[in-house]
Amino acid sequence: MGVAVKRGPDFEIEKGTNKEYSVTKIKATNITWHEGHVTRQEREKLLEQKGVLIWFTGLSGSGKSTIAYTLEHALVQRGHLCYVLDGDNIRHGLNKNLGFSAEDRKENIRRIGEVGKLFVDSGLVTMTSFISPYRADRDTVRALLAPGDFFEVYCNTPIEVCETRDPKGLYKKARAGELKGFTGVDDPYEPPLKPELTIDATNVSPQEAAVKLVEMLETAGKISPLAA
Amino acid sequence: MGVAVKRGPDFEIEKGTNKEYSVTKIKATNITWHEGHVTRQEREKLLEQKGVLIWFTGLSGSGKSTIAYTLEHALVQRGHLCYVLDGDNIRHGLNKNLGFSAEDRKENIRRIGEVGKLFVDSGLVTMTSFISPYRADRDTVRALLAPGDFFEVYCNTPIEVCETRDPKGLYKKARAGELKGFTGVDDPYEPPLKPELTIDATNVSPQEAAVKLVEMLETAGKISPLAA
Repeated sequence: MGVAVKRGPDFEIEKGTNKEYSVTKIKATNITWHEGHVTRQEREKLLEQKGVLIWFTGLSGSGKSTIAYTLEHALVQRGHLCYVLDGDNIRHGLNKNLGFSAEDRKENIRRIGEVGKLFVDSGLVTMTSFISPYRADRDTVRALLAPGDFFEVYCNTPIEVCETRDPKGLYKKARAGELKGFTGVDDPYEPPLKPELTIDATNVSPQEAAVKLVEMLETAGKISPLAA
Repeated sequence: MGVAVKRGPDFEIEKGTNKEYSVTKIKATNITWHEGHVTRQEREKLLEQKGVLIWFTGLSGSGKSTIAYTLEHALVQRGHLCYVLDGDNIRHGLNKNLGFSAEDRKENIRRIGEVGKLFVDSGLVTMTSFISPYRADRDTVRALLAPGDFFEVYCNTPIEVCETRDPKGLYKKARAGELKGFTGVDDPYEPPLKPELTIDATNVSPQEAAVKLVEMLETAGKISPLAA
């Protein structure tokens, strides 16, 4: 039982022990009020999953986005809430005022990391799909997050395979000199030294890769295994 | 029934009609694969709510954060997933490389709007708590979002009341000249012309304000009313 701290024509607010408020007599709202913020743990409990940032890195055409979106489908089917950050929703929005200079690439990855951190805090299984060629930039993002919240997934599909696929015709343009500073052609890619998972998509389907990732998330306790 | 497109020692991937894949025989994963992205509508269905951005604006001390966090508690208690973007998680993270010049304030709000848009797309009831004093900046955010996804909540608590509260001692510092460009003291606040809701927190408790906001979200179809 608490102490009434405020009364209106159709409600009463009571303050209980331990910073707890109760509103009663309001039609269809029996809400217990709490001071302070809802925690990440409370959101995770609601979602029945734990927040995590799965950072896909690798050359253009190495399978990052396809695997991310395949994993997303698999997880949604199991009732998990996911979100994929990629060029489509970042480069035309949050980072539309950034170019491709070394400084801008660095800021691009930093902002994506910070947004990823917010999504993890909100409890979502968050995936990012960006070439993110520089080790230092990826390590900056890793350092932003708590240990166990960041999984670096290195898509190390050989450039010859990526170039054969070339879904957006970018390698062709880069080889023709129409595109400057293209990773793998005239700009370096620095492979992760200790990625949580490495996937060569040459002979592995997106579905197989997604199954591996689901297992990784189960093992890490981010999602629960399905009942047998 | 589909056509087997890939087989492994303990799995088989079938392609069905209409771009649908099924993986069978993998232990405890009977997943139907789909091409393309999971849509906002699918996430909203999972969450049993609709994504929305509630943009609180008003002077320092006008009640923005307190109301936002009170609403958050009320919604979480009803099983809804929310997230609050505020100075604590934005100014020290995503926007830590921005200052308080007119240009930086504009970029500050732009980035918050873009992040809010991503959260809305992910299906969350998203709240932002920033003074956001300039009308043009707020209108830029409104224009980013689809009609019906943006609710501008104007906390128009009079400056005398805000100044009496002064939870962070900022008005005192601003009046003493120790803080320059402080909104309401030596920097303008441009009130919204057509806010979706106006709250004067002088005589309205955060709990009463939250009840109003819950009603607003129910009326807009963003959350379902509780059963009577």
